[in-house]
Amino acid sequence: MNPLTSPLLADLYQFTMLQTYLEQDMEETAVFELFVRKLPPGRNFMVAAGLEQVIEFLENLRFSPEELDWLATRFPPHVITYLEQFRFYGDIHAMPEGTIFFPNEPILRITAKMPQAQLVESRIINLMHFETLIASKAARSVLVAPDKLLVDFGMRRAHGAEAGLLAARASYLAGFSGTATVLAGTLFDIPLFGTMAHSFIQAHQNESDAFEHFARSHPNNTVLLIDTYDTEAAAHKVVTLARNLKADKINIQGIRLDSGDLAEHAKNVRQILDEGGLHQTTIFASGNLDEYKLHTLLSAHAPIDGFGIGTALDISIDAPSLDCAYKLQEYAGKPRRKRSEGKATWPGRKQVYRQYAGDGCMARDIVALEDDDPQQGESLIQPFMRSGKRLHPKLSLQELRSQALINYQHLPAAMTALDPAPGYPVTISSALRAMADQLDKERLLHDRESLRKL
Amino acid sequence: MNPLTSPLLADLYQFTMLQTYLEQDMEETAVFELFVRKLPPGRNFMVAAGLEQVIEFLENLRFSPEELDWLATRFPPHVITYLEQFRFYGDIHAMPEGTIFFPNEPILRITAKMPQAQLVESRIINLMHFETLIASKAARSVLVAPDKLLVDFGMRRAHGAEAGLLAARASYLAGFSGTATVLAGTLFDIPLFGTMAHSFIQAHQNESDAFEHFARSHPNNTVLLIDTYDTEAAAHKVVTLARNLKADKINIQGIRLDSGDLAEHAKNVRQILDEGGLHQTTIFASGNLDEYKLHTLLSAHAPIDGFGIGTALDISIDAPSLDCAYKLQEYAGKPRRKRSEGKATWPGRKQVYRQYAGDGCMARDIVALEDDDPQQGESLIQPFMRSGKRLHPKLSLQELRSQALINYQHLPAAMTALDPAPGYPVTISSALRAMADQLDKERLLHDRESLRKL
Repeated sequence: MNPLTSPLLADLYQFTMLQTYLEQDMEETAVFELFVRKLPPGRNFMVAAGLEQVIEFLENLRFSPEELDWLATRFPPHVITYLEQFRFYGDIHAMPEGTIFFPNEPILRITAKMPQAQLVESRIINLMHFETLIASKAARSVLVAPDKLLVDFGMRRAHGAEAGLLAARASYLAGFSGTATVLAGTLFDIPLFGTMAHSFIQAHQNESDAFEHFARSHPNNTVLLIDTYDTEAAAHKVVTLARNLKADKINIQGIRLDSGDLAEHAKNVRQILDEGGLHQTTIFASGNLDEYKLHTLLSAHAPIDGFGIGTALDISIDAPSLDCAYKLQEYAGKPRRKRSEGKATWPGRKQVYRQYAGDGCMARDIVALEDDDPQQGESLIQPFMRSGKRLHPKLSLQELRSQALINYQHLPAAMTALDPAPGYPVTISSALRAMADQLDKERLLHDRESLRKL
Repeated sequence: MNPLTSPLLADLYQFTMLQTYLEQDMEETAVFELFVRKLPPGRNFMVAAGLEQVIEFLENLRFSPEELDWLATRFPPHVITYLEQFRFYGDIHAMPEGTIFFPNEPILRITAKMPQAQLVESRIINLMHFETLIASKAARSVLVAPDKLLVDFGMRRAHGAEAGLLAARASYLAGFSGTATVLAGTLFDIPLFGTMAHSFIQAHQNESDAFEHFARSHPNNTVLLIDTYDTEAAAHKVVTLARNLKADKINIQGIRLDSGDLAEHAKNVRQILDEGGLHQTTIFASGNLDEYKLHTLLSAHAPIDGFGIGTALDISIDAPSLDCAYKLQEYAGKPRRKRSEGKATWPGRKQVYRQYAGDGCMARDIVALEDDDPQQGESLIQPFMRSGKRLHPKLSLQELRSQALINYQHLPAAMTALDPAPGYPVTISSALRAMADQLDKERLLHDRESLRKL
């Protein structure tokens, strides 16, 4: 059982409910939508991501004999028979990856027979939640430092293997320059970056020897880590080394700072390098960075050319989860509404329309019913899968990234800042409100009826 | 390439350094230790976890032809030749999973030839960091509610598939009762729990029908979700249903609350159930719970028998990362010390000794050198792998869990509370301090020597 593709990566109740759906012949079409209930603290907008992983998951969804054997120890034979033939034959509508979005706007819609649409809930949320979380975090660094090299350094403290991989993907999609995670480069064709570890320096008796050994192994890609003992002293060693290596046509491309006052060290080191004639040697910084520290460093005119951002990015440290939900909005042709306290949903199949101001900036969004509720603006939700088949050729991650960068250009200026911006207007259409009211009324009548019968 | 086992799930610099190690014949024995620099906010202790996954990773570590082909596009042939035969032949010393530990105490030590010990760094941190993070979070709920059913509900908002799986494992190891994640039950033999989703209720025109259909499908395991529309009204429906199902020998085992004021609803629902004769029907609660909310509910004597804890657990929401590091402490028989600002390490191979007070409570820990630095107390670090081979038969997760629960009994009372306890005393032995001082002195002399040569 491969945890990344196994349909058993699901909550137990998906199978428990499946059994009842089958026994009650509840195989009508169900419509589920995935949305976020509210903006996480410190975010002015979110960036949709993870759709490609959802499509791949649903395209390949099937039960192995081993998985069926395990299920057979807990579920009756008719459930196992159903699952033997299980394929996802539903539709996906969604916002393309890289789309900017807001609370209560569906970013994904699954339309399928109830047992199919229900069974896939847990993994769909798991994939969309995480990549959207990371893309939304990464976008902030991209907007703060649009001209800098930004590299994902976070895999080691990401929550497991898939988190490390998908954080690399989501941050690159959101505009990062690349990642240090080799497998992410391999699987997603993301540019790879890397320098050296402190252990490499420590393993040498002499820091200068460590620098020279590394430079001779990597004459075209020498980035030296200079903070293991004394940063400025190490910068002087780099200048001396560069002089000695000139005859062998080896250039020191860059140095990395990883501790202490990065602005102060960067200024000192830039001066030492420049005085040593190393004007082309770049300065790369890392060490507990996030978009706020980037902003501070750039405001202080720290001469830093690139940043490695790790833990804060890969776990979205200031807001490590989104309050998202995958909710039933229609079943058997009838709109549905959950009324739980504080968790009521907008019923029906929905479209999100985006309107732009004269200067090209996003002006407002309207959440409306998909049918018979026409609105002005760009339709953000598009079809991606029909009857279990992908509708468009897969876009490269580079293409998605380019589109995300274009999308940012339409953000109102206040929303590109790190500080909280005034709320972006998202309107619920009057037809959608009327439908919700109508459902509440019907529910009330129905409840009175039921109570009378008790 | 399977992301969960691929050696390419590593930072690029691991391979870059490997190349230089090989070219410089730096294949002496290296000793790396994994430790946490400081307690995360809101924690009085940490619980070690993830060792079994590290052992499995190292036992099975090898490069596939596909992985070697990819590496050959970036690294010279001698590196590929080396990796073709790559196996991990090193040693592991570690604290057993479930051990309570504190900052600066190594929880894992890798002793291997430098290229091997370095190459595995990223994934070892990735595995140990996450499971330790979650076990340390889960322990708090276990200590707050030792007599309640505690179920991991968090997979959907965990950071990817492996996080969902390993959060189920780590929380069970730390004393949870089980998980909702089917695959975690399958792979780790963790008890599974589940109820039903709101969509199941919504898909029925009538809540009572939904309850009855579910009960008839699952006569031995009926837990009904009653907050979709009106919690107390639904509780009355449950009473009526139970009466109607009695003839068919179907009992309603429990109900679940998922929104609103859980203490208030639980009291009302308990009364309704009791008045309806359903004294045996249990109340299970979920919905954005964490150990603080559990404490509040238990203090209010809310009649709740079990809790589903999701997002807060699976991402350790109040402290979603640990400041941990995997650092070189010895190379070629010589102790090593990193001196970066704010990130200095304790050199050498270390043992942690734990001393207990007369009442059995943990009294203090001593971090000492493994050799020639004897201390009183229990040795927490034990050998687990020698020359790439596992030393002990794998313990079941149940056995690890039982040991963790025993370990909690030795915690001083203040440390079992949610509030911050006085710091637990962790002493660095005088021999270890002396070694660190000696290394600093040698470094200084060496630096002066180098500067004189410049």
